[in-house]
Amino acid sequence: MKSDVKLLGAWPSPYVLRVRIALNMKSVDYEFHEERFPDKSPLLLKSNPIHKKIPVLIHKDKPLSESLIIVQYVDDVWSSASPILPSDPYDRAMARFWADYIDQTLYPTMKSIRGAADQEGKNRLIEEVREGLALLEDVFKSSSKGKGFYGGDQIGLLDIALGCFLGWLRVVETVNGVKLLNQTNTPELLKWADRFCAHAAVKDVMPETGRLVEFSKTLPK
Amino acid sequence: MKSDVKLLGAWPSPYVLRVRIALNMKSVDYEFHEERFPDKSPLLLKSNPIHKKIPVLIHKDKPLSESLIIVQYVDDVWSSASPILPSDPYDRAMARFWADYIDQTLYPTMKSIRGAADQEGKNRLIEEVREGLALLEDVFKSSSKGKGFYGGDQIGLLDIALGCFLGWLRVVETVNGVKLLNQTNTPELLKWADRFCAHAAVKDVMPETGRLVEFSKTLPK
Repeated sequence: MKSDVKLLGAWPSPYVLRVRIALNMKSVDYEFHEERFPDKSPLLLKSNPIHKKIPVLIHKDKPLSESLIIVQYVDDVWSSASPILPSDPYDRAMARFWADYIDQTLYPTMKSIRGAADQEGKNRLIEEVREGLALLEDVFKSSSKGKGFYGGDQIGLLDIALGCFLGWLRVVETVNGVKLLNQTNTPELLKWADRFCAHAAVKDVMPETGRLVEFSKTLPK
Repeated sequence: MKSDVKLLGAWPSPYVLRVRIALNMKSVDYEFHEERFPDKSPLLLKSNPIHKKIPVLIHKDKPLSESLIIVQYVDDVWSSASPILPSDPYDRAMARFWADYIDQTLYPTMKSIRGAADQEGKNRLIEEVREGLALLEDVFKSSSKGKGFYGGDQIGLLDIALGCFLGWLRVVETVNGVKLLNQTNTPELLKWADRFCAHAAVKDVMPETGRLVEFSKTLPK
Protein backbone atom coordinates (compact mmCIF):
# COMPACT_ATOMS: atom_id res chain seq x y z
CA MET A 1 0.00 0.00 0.00
CA LYS A 2 1.25 3.46 -0.85
CA SER A 3 1.92 5.46 2.30
CA ASP A 4 -0.43 8.38 2.90
CA VAL A 5 2.42 10.24 4.65
CA LYS A 6 5.21 11.86 2.64
CA LEU A 7 8.03 13.96 4.02
CA LEU A 8 9.95 16.35 1.80
CA GLY A 9 13.33 16.90 3.39
CA ALA A 10 17.09 16.68 3.18
CA TRP A 11 19.42 14.65 5.40
CA PRO A 12 21.46 17.57 6.85
CA SER A 13 18.43 19.65 7.90
CA PRO A 14 17.83 19.81 11.65
CA TYR A 15 14.25 20.95 11.04
CA VAL A 16 13.52 17.89 8.90
CA LEU A 17 15.07 15.73 11.62
CA ARG A 18 12.44 17.00 14.06
CA VAL A 19 9.65 15.62 11.90
CA ARG A 20 11.44 12.28 11.35
CA ILE A 21 11.87 11.83 15.11
CA ALA A 22 8.22 12.71 15.77
CA LEU A 23 7.03 10.24 13.11
CA ASN A 24 9.35 7.55 14.54
CA MET A 25 8.01 8.21 18.05
CA LYS A 26 4.55 7.48 16.70
CA SER A 27 5.69 4.49 14.57
CA VAL A 28 4.27 6.15 11.46
CA ASP A 29 5.52 4.81 8.12
CA TYR A 30 6.31 7.51 5.61
CA GLU A 31 7.92 8.07 2.24
CA PHE A 32 10.98 10.31 2.42
CA HIS A 33 11.60 12.56 -0.58
CA GLU A 34 15.15 13.87 -0.50
CA GLU A 35 15.43 17.41 -1.88
CA ARG A 36 18.72 18.10 -3.65
CA PHE A 37 20.14 21.32 -2.20
CA PRO A 38 20.11 24.04 -3.58
CA ASP A 39 17.40 22.92 -6.06
CA LYS A 40 13.76 22.80 -5.04
CA SER A 41 11.47 20.13 -6.46
CA PRO A 42 8.20 21.11 -8.16
CA LEU A 43 6.40 19.21 -5.36
CA LEU A 44 8.13 21.35 -2.71
CA LEU A 45 7.32 24.60 -4.52
CA LYS A 46 3.70 23.53 -4.91
CA SER A 47 3.39 22.31 -1.31
CA ASN A 48 5.00 25.27 0.44
CA PRO A 49 4.52 28.23 -1.91
CA ILE A 50 4.90 30.76 0.93
CA HIS A 51 8.31 29.82 2.32
CA LYS A 52 9.51 27.26 -0.29
CA LYS A 53 11.35 25.49 2.53
CA ILE A 54 11.69 22.00 3.93
CA PRO A 55 10.37 20.19 5.87
CA VAL A 56 6.99 19.69 4.28
CA LEU A 57 4.77 16.90 5.54
CA ILE A 58 2.08 15.75 3.14
CA HIS A 59 -0.62 13.76 4.91
CA LYS A 60 -3.55 12.49 2.85
CA ASP A 61 -2.48 14.91 0.09
CA LYS A 62 -2.63 17.94 2.43
CA PRO A 63 0.68 19.75 2.91
CA LEU A 64 1.99 21.24 6.15
CA SER A 65 5.16 23.19 6.85
CA GLU A 66 7.20 24.70 9.71
CA SER A 67 8.84 21.99 11.78
CA LEU A 68 7.36 22.73 15.21
CA ILE A 69 3.89 23.09 13.72
CA ILE A 70 4.31 19.73 11.98
CA VAL A 71 5.53 18.05 15.19
CA GLN A 72 2.45 19.32 17.04
CA TYR A 73 0.25 18.10 14.17
CA VAL A 74 1.85 14.65 14.33
CA ASP A 75 1.18 14.59 18.06
CA ASP A 76 -2.45 15.63 17.49
CA VAL A 77 -3.19 13.10 14.74
CA TRP A 78 -1.40 10.07 16.18
CA SER A 79 -2.42 10.92 19.71
CA SER A 80 -2.61 7.45 21.23
CA ALA A 81 1.14 6.63 21.20
CA SER A 82 4.01 8.44 23.01
CA PRO A 83 2.66 11.94 23.70
CA ILE A 84 5.09 14.63 22.56
CA LEU A 85 3.46 17.71 24.10
CA PRO A 86 3.19 17.76 27.91
CA SER A 87 -0.35 17.18 29.17
CA ASP A 88 -0.29 20.05 31.71
CA PRO A 89 -1.17 23.40 30.07
CA TYR A 90 1.61 25.31 31.86
CA ASP A 91 4.24 22.67 31.02
CA ARG A 92 2.99 22.72 27.44
CA ALA A 93 3.30 26.51 27.26
CA MET A 94 6.82 26.37 28.72
CA ALA A 95 7.91 23.69 26.24
CA ARG A 96 6.64 25.93 23.44
CA PHE A 97 8.39 28.95 24.97
CA TRP A 98 11.79 27.25 25.11
CA ALA A 99 11.38 25.67 21.68
CA ASP A 100 10.74 29.17 20.38
CA TYR A 101 13.81 30.47 22.25
CA ILE A 102 15.93 27.78 20.60
CA ASP A 103 14.64 28.68 17.13
CA GLN A 104 14.66 32.46 17.48
CA THR A 105 17.76 32.99 19.61
CA LEU A 106 20.02 30.00 20.32
CA TYR A 107 20.28 28.39 16.90
CA PRO A 108 20.61 31.67 14.93
CA THR A 109 23.49 32.60 17.28
CA MET A 110 25.15 29.20 16.81
CA LYS A 111 24.73 29.44 13.05
CA SER A 112 26.27 32.91 12.92
CA ILE A 113 29.57 31.72 14.49
CA ARG A 114 30.67 30.50 11.07
CA GLY A 115 30.32 33.90 9.43
CA ALA A 116 31.82 35.99 12.27
CA ALA A 117 34.26 38.63 11.02
CA ASP A 118 37.12 37.65 13.34
CA GLN A 119 38.13 35.37 16.22
CA GLU A 120 36.93 37.88 18.80
CA GLY A 121 33.49 37.89 17.21
CA LYS A 122 33.48 34.09 17.09
CA ASN A 123 34.44 33.86 20.78
CA ARG A 124 31.67 36.25 21.77
CA LEU A 125 29.07 34.20 19.89
CA ILE A 126 30.42 30.92 21.34
CA GLU A 127 30.03 32.42 24.79
CA GLU A 128 26.45 33.46 24.00
CA VAL A 129 25.63 29.91 22.89
CA ARG A 130 27.14 28.55 26.11
CA GLU A 131 24.98 30.93 28.15
CA GLY A 132 21.90 29.79 26.23
CA LEU A 133 22.75 26.15 26.84
CA ALA A 134 23.27 26.87 30.55
CA LEU A 135 19.70 28.25 30.63
CA LEU A 136 18.49 25.07 28.95
CA GLU A 137 20.44 23.01 31.53
CA ASP A 138 18.35 24.70 34.24
CA VAL A 139 15.16 24.06 32.29
CA PHE A 140 16.20 20.42 31.96
CA LYS A 141 16.69 20.08 35.70
CA SER A 142 13.23 21.45 36.46
CA SER A 143 11.24 19.83 33.66
CA SER A 144 12.79 16.33 33.54
CA LYS A 145 11.98 15.80 37.23
CA GLY A 146 14.97 13.47 37.67
CA LYS A 147 14.17 11.45 34.57
CA GLY A 148 16.08 11.15 31.29
CA PHE A 149 14.41 13.71 29.05
CA TYR A 150 12.82 17.15 29.05
CA GLY A 151 9.60 15.19 28.50
CA GLY A 152 10.32 12.95 31.54
CA ASP A 153 10.61 9.25 30.74
CA GLN A 154 10.09 9.89 27.05
CA ILE A 155 11.22 12.36 24.42
CA GLY A 156 8.98 15.45 24.31
CA LEU A 157 8.67 18.65 22.26
CA LEU A 158 11.67 20.31 23.86
CA ASP A 159 13.89 17.24 23.48
CA ILE A 160 13.06 17.26 19.77
CA ALA A 161 13.44 21.03 19.42
CA LEU A 162 16.93 21.08 20.96
CA GLY A 163 18.09 17.55 20.10
CA CYS A 164 17.75 18.06 16.37
CA PHE A 165 20.60 20.58 16.57
CA LEU A 166 23.07 18.22 18.28
CA GLY A 167 24.66 17.19 14.98
CA TRP A 168 25.31 20.79 14.01
CA LEU A 169 26.41 21.65 17.54
CA ARG A 170 29.07 18.96 17.19
CA VAL A 171 30.10 20.43 13.84
CA VAL A 172 30.65 23.80 15.53
CA GLU A 173 32.61 22.06 18.31
CA THR A 174 34.76 20.16 15.80
CA VAL A 175 35.45 23.05 13.45
CA ASN A 176 36.23 25.52 16.25
CA GLY A 177 37.97 23.13 18.66
CA VAL A 178 35.61 24.06 21.52
CA LYS A 179 33.14 22.28 23.77
CA LEU A 180 29.72 23.91 23.83
CA LEU A 181 28.22 21.16 25.98
CA ASN A 182 30.65 20.41 28.77
CA GLN A 183 31.08 19.05 32.27
CA THR A 184 31.36 22.49 33.87
CA ASN A 185 28.39 24.38 32.42
CA THR A 186 26.02 21.69 31.27
CA PRO A 187 26.77 18.34 32.95
CA GLU A 188 23.15 17.18 32.70
CA LEU A 189 22.73 18.17 29.05
CA LEU A 190 25.97 16.36 28.21
CA LYS A 191 24.43 13.11 29.45
CA TRP A 192 21.06 13.98 27.95
CA ALA A 193 22.67 14.46 24.52
CA ASP A 194 24.06 10.90 24.57
CA ARG A 195 20.74 9.50 25.72
CA PHE A 196 18.87 11.44 23.06
CA CYS A 197 21.14 10.31 20.21
CA ALA A 198 20.91 6.67 21.36
CA HIS A 199 17.09 6.73 21.55
CA ALA A 200 15.31 4.28 19.22
CA ALA A 201 13.40 7.11 17.49
CA VAL A 202 16.59 9.10 16.89
CA LYS A 203 19.63 6.90 16.32
CA ASP A 204 18.91 5.90 12.72
CA VAL A 205 18.05 9.40 11.55
CA MET A 206 20.62 11.58 13.40
CA PRO A 207 23.23 12.56 10.80
CA GLU A 208 26.81 11.50 11.48
CA THR A 209 28.98 14.47 12.55
CA GLY A 210 31.84 13.78 10.09
CA ARG A 211 29.42 13.78 7.20
CA LEU A 212 27.89 17.07 8.39
CA VAL A 213 31.38 18.60 8.68
CA GLU A 214 32.08 17.65 5.05
CA PHE A 215 28.70 19.03 4.00
CA SER A 216 29.30 22.28 5.91
CA LYS A 217 32.42 22.92 3.78
CA THR A 218 30.21 23.14 0.70
CA LEU A 219 27.99 25.86 2.18
CA PRO A 220 28.44 29.56 1.45
CA LYS A 221 29.68 31.61 4.42
CA MET B 1 -11.22 38.39 46.02
CA LYS B 2 -7.87 39.17 44.47
CA SER B 3 -7.71 37.87 40.92
CA ASP B 4 -5.28 34.99 40.31
CA VAL B 5 -4.74 36.29 36.77
CA LYS B 6 -2.52 39.32 36.12
CA LEU B 7 -1.55 40.71 32.75
CA LEU B 8 1.50 42.91 32.34
CA GLY B 9 1.00 45.00 29.24
CA ALA B 10 0.66 48.41 27.63
CA TRP B 11 -2.32 49.81 25.77
CA PRO B 12 -0.65 50.36 22.37
CA SER B 13 0.82 46.83 22.13
CA PRO B 14 -0.84 44.56 19.56
CA TYR B 15 0.65 41.52 21.29
CA VAL B 16 -0.90 42.46 24.62
CA LEU B 17 -4.21 43.01 22.82
CA ARG B 18 -4.16 39.35 21.75
CA VAL B 19 -4.12 38.20 25.35
CA ARG B 20 -6.85 40.65 26.40
CA ILE B 21 -9.11 39.41 23.61
CA ALA B 22 -8.44 35.76 24.52
CA LEU B 23 -9.21 36.43 28.19
CA ASN B 24 -12.38 38.32 27.22
CA MET B 25 -13.47 35.42 24.99
CA LYS B 26 -13.23 33.17 28.04
CA SER B 27 -14.84 35.74 30.40
CA VAL B 28 -11.77 35.59 32.65
CA ASP B 29 -11.37 38.46 35.12
CA TYR B 30 -7.82 39.78 35.34
CA GLU B 31 -5.77 42.59 36.81
CA PHE B 32 -4.12 44.73 34.14
CA HIS B 33 -0.71 46.19 35.03
CA GLU B 34 0.16 48.98 32.60
CA GLU B 35 3.89 49.14 31.87
CA ARG B 36 5.15 52.68 31.22
CA PHE B 37 7.14 52.61 27.98
CA PRO B 38 10.18 52.66 27.78
CA ASP B 39 10.63 51.68 31.46
CA LYS B 40 10.24 48.08 32.57
CA SER B 41 8.76 47.26 35.96
CA PRO B 42 10.64 45.00 38.38
CA LEU B 43 7.73 42.55 38.08
CA LEU B 44 8.17 42.40 34.28
CA LEU B 45 11.94 41.88 34.54
CA LYS B 46 11.42 39.14 37.10
CA SER B 47 8.60 37.46 35.17
CA ASN B 48 10.20 37.46 31.72
CA PRO B 49 13.97 37.54 32.33
CA ILE B 50 14.72 36.06 28.91
CA HIS B 51 13.02 38.57 26.62
CA LYS B 52 12.01 41.30 29.11
CA LYS B 53 8.97 41.97 26.94
CA ILE B 54 5.23 42.32 27.31
CA PRO B 55 2.78 40.65 27.35
CA VAL B 56 3.35 38.55 30.44
CA LEU B 57 0.44 36.60 31.88
CA ILE B 58 0.79 35.61 35.51
CA HIS B 59 -1.62 32.84 36.45
CA LYS B 60 -1.54 31.49 40.00
CA ASP B 61 1.86 33.18 40.40
CA LYS B 62 3.35 31.41 37.37
CA PRO B 63 4.46 33.70 34.54
CA LEU B 64 4.07 33.05 30.82
CA SER B 65 5.22 35.10 27.87
CA GLU B 66 5.00 35.26 24.05
CA SER B 67 1.52 36.28 22.93
CA LEU B 68 0.55 33.28 20.78
CA ILE B 69 1.80 30.87 23.44
CA ILE B 70 -0.27 32.70 26.06
CA VAL B 71 -3.37 32.64 23.83
CA GLN B 72 -3.01 28.86 23.43
CA TYR B 73 -2.51 28.51 27.18
CA VAL B 74 -5.67 30.51 27.86
CA ASP B 75 -7.53 28.23 25.45
CA ASP B 76 -6.12 25.13 27.20
CA VAL B 77 -6.90 26.26 30.74
CA TRP B 78 -10.36 27.75 30.16
CA SER B 79 -11.30 25.08 27.67
CA SER B 80 -15.04 24.92 28.23
CA ALA B 81 -15.98 28.33 26.78
CA SER B 82 -15.48 29.65 23.21
CA PRO B 83 -12.70 27.45 21.75
CA ILE B 84 -9.95 29.56 20.17
CA LEU B 85 -7.95 26.83 18.43
CA PRO B 86 -9.77 24.85 15.72
CA SER B 87 -10.69 21.31 16.79
CA ASP B 88 -9.46 19.64 13.59
CA PRO B 89 -5.68 18.96 13.69
CA TYR B 90 -5.09 20.16 10.13
CA ASP B 91 -7.11 23.35 10.64
CA ARG B 92 -5.23 23.90 13.91
CA ALA B 93 -1.87 23.51 12.15
CA MET B 94 -2.94 25.92 9.39
CA ALA B 95 -4.11 28.52 11.91
CA ARG B 96 -0.68 28.26 13.60
CA PHE B 97 1.07 28.48 10.23
CA TRP B 98 -0.69 31.69 9.20
CA ALA B 99 -0.35 33.23 12.67
CA ASP B 100 3.38 32.57 12.35
CA TYR B 101 3.38 34.12 8.85
CA ILE B 102 1.73 37.24 10.26
CA ASP B 103 4.32 37.53 13.05
CA GLN B 104 7.41 36.63 11.06
CA THR B 105 6.63 38.24 7.71
CA LEU B 106 3.56 40.47 7.43
CA TYR B 107 3.84 42.60 10.57
CA PRO B 108 7.64 43.13 10.36
CA THR B 109 7.10 44.37 6.78
CA MET B 110 4.27 46.69 7.86
CA LYS B 111 6.38 47.99 10.74
CA SER B 112 9.35 48.73 8.48
CA ILE B 113 7.33 51.09 6.24
CA ARG B 114 7.91 53.86 8.77
CA GLY B 115 11.69 53.62 8.61
CA ALA B 116 11.99 53.23 4.81
CA ALA B 117 14.73 55.40 3.32
CA ASP B 118 12.56 57.01 0.63
CA GLN B 119 9.10 57.02 -0.95
CA GLU B 120 10.08 54.32 -3.42
CA GLY B 121 11.09 52.04 -0.53
CA LYS B 122 7.84 52.85 1.29
CA ASN B 123 5.78 52.04 -1.80
CA ARG B 124 7.51 48.70 -2.27
CA LEU B 125 6.84 47.73 1.35
CA ILE B 126 3.20 48.88 1.11
CA GLU B 127 2.81 46.68 -1.95
CA GLU B 128 4.32 43.71 -0.05
CA VAL B 129 1.85 44.21 2.80
CA ARG B 130 -1.01 44.32 0.29
CA GLU B 131 0.18 41.05 -1.24
CA GLY B 132 0.34 39.45 2.21
CA LEU B 133 -3.18 40.65 3.01
CA ALA B 134 -4.42 39.27 -0.32
CA LEU B 135 -3.04 35.86 0.75
CA LEU B 136 -4.89 36.20 4.05
CA GLU B 137 -8.06 37.12 2.14
CA ASP B 138 -7.83 33.74 0.37
CA VAL B 139 -7.21 31.98 3.69
CA PHE B 140 -10.27 33.74 5.09
CA LYS B 141 -12.46 32.54 2.22
CA SER B 142 -11.43 28.93 2.75
CA SER B 143 -11.31 28.80 6.55
CA SER B 144 -14.38 30.89 7.46
CA LYS B 145 -16.63 28.61 5.37
CA GLY B 146 -19.03 31.45 4.62
CA LYS B 147 -19.21 32.57 8.25
CA GLY B 148 -17.97 35.78 9.85
CA PHE B 149 -14.54 34.87 11.17
CA TYR B 150 -11.46 32.79 10.39
CA GLY B 151 -12.68 30.64 13.27
CA GLY B 152 -16.17 30.31 11.72
CA ASP B 153 -19.01 31.66 13.85
CA GLN B 154 -16.59 32.78 16.53
CA ILE B 155 -13.21 34.47 16.80
CA GLY B 156 -10.34 31.98 16.57
CA LEU B 157 -6.54 32.01 16.79
CA LEU B 158 -6.07 33.54 13.35
CA ASP B 159 -8.68 36.24 13.96
CA ILE B 160 -6.79 37.23 17.10
CA ALA B 161 -3.37 36.97 15.45
CA LEU B 162 -4.30 39.28 12.56
CA GLY B 163 -7.00 41.36 14.23
CA CYS B 164 -4.70 42.68 16.93
CA PHE B 165 -2.78 44.57 14.22
CA LEU B 166 -5.83 46.39 12.82
CA GLY B 167 -5.18 49.48 14.95
CA TRP B 168 -1.63 49.78 13.69
CA LEU B 169 -2.70 48.97 10.14
CA ARG B 170 -5.03 51.95 10.32
CA VAL B 171 -2.17 54.09 11.61
CA VAL B 172 -0.11 53.12 8.54
CA GLU B 173 -3.12 53.90 6.32
CA THR B 174 -3.67 57.28 7.98
CA VAL B 175 -0.04 58.39 8.05
CA ASN B 176 0.67 57.30 4.46
CA GLY B 177 -2.70 58.17 2.91
CA VAL B 178 -3.16 54.64 1.53
CA LYS B 179 -5.67 51.82 1.91
CA LEU B 180 -4.06 48.51 2.82
CA LEU B 181 -7.40 46.78 3.22
CA ASN B 182 -9.59 47.75 0.29
CA GLN B 183 -12.53 46.79 -1.88
CA THR B 184 -10.34 45.61 -4.76
CA ASN B 185 -7.80 43.31 -3.09
CA THR B 186 -9.43 42.33 0.17
CA PRO B 187 -13.21 42.88 0.07
CA GLU B 188 -13.88 40.08 2.58
CA LEU B 189 -11.17 41.20 5.03
CA LEU B 190 -12.53 44.74 4.87
CA LYS B 191 -15.87 43.49 6.20
CA TRP B 192 -14.16 41.06 8.59
CA ALA B 193 -12.16 43.94 10.12
CA ASP B 194 -15.36 45.83 11.00
CA ARG B 195 -16.95 42.69 12.44
CA PHE B 196 -13.82 41.91 14.45
CA CYS B 197 -13.54 45.40 15.95
CA ALA B 198 -17.24 45.40 16.86
CA HIS B 199 -17.05 41.99 18.61
CA ALA B 200 -17.91 41.98 22.31
CA ALA B 201 -14.47 40.57 23.25
CA VAL B 202 -12.66 43.24 21.21
CA LYS B 203 -14.51 46.56 21.14
CA ASP B 204 -13.54 47.77 24.60
CA VAL B 205 -9.85 46.87 24.28
CA MET B 206 -9.05 47.83 20.67
CA PRO B 207 -7.06 51.09 20.85
CA GLU B 208 -8.52 54.08 19.06
CA THR B 209 -6.63 54.89 15.83
CA GLY B 210 -6.19 58.60 16.53
CA ARG B 211 -4.60 57.85 19.90
CA LEU B 212 -2.24 55.34 18.27
CA VAL B 213 -1.29 57.91 15.62
CA GLU B 214 -0.37 60.38 18.38
CA PHE B 215 1.58 57.66 20.22
CA SER B 216 3.41 56.66 17.03
CA LYS B 217 4.80 60.20 16.75
CA THR B 218 6.65 59.65 20.03
CA LEU B 219 8.44 56.50 18.80
CA PRO B 220 11.97 56.49 17.42
CA LYS B 221 12.20 55.82 13.65
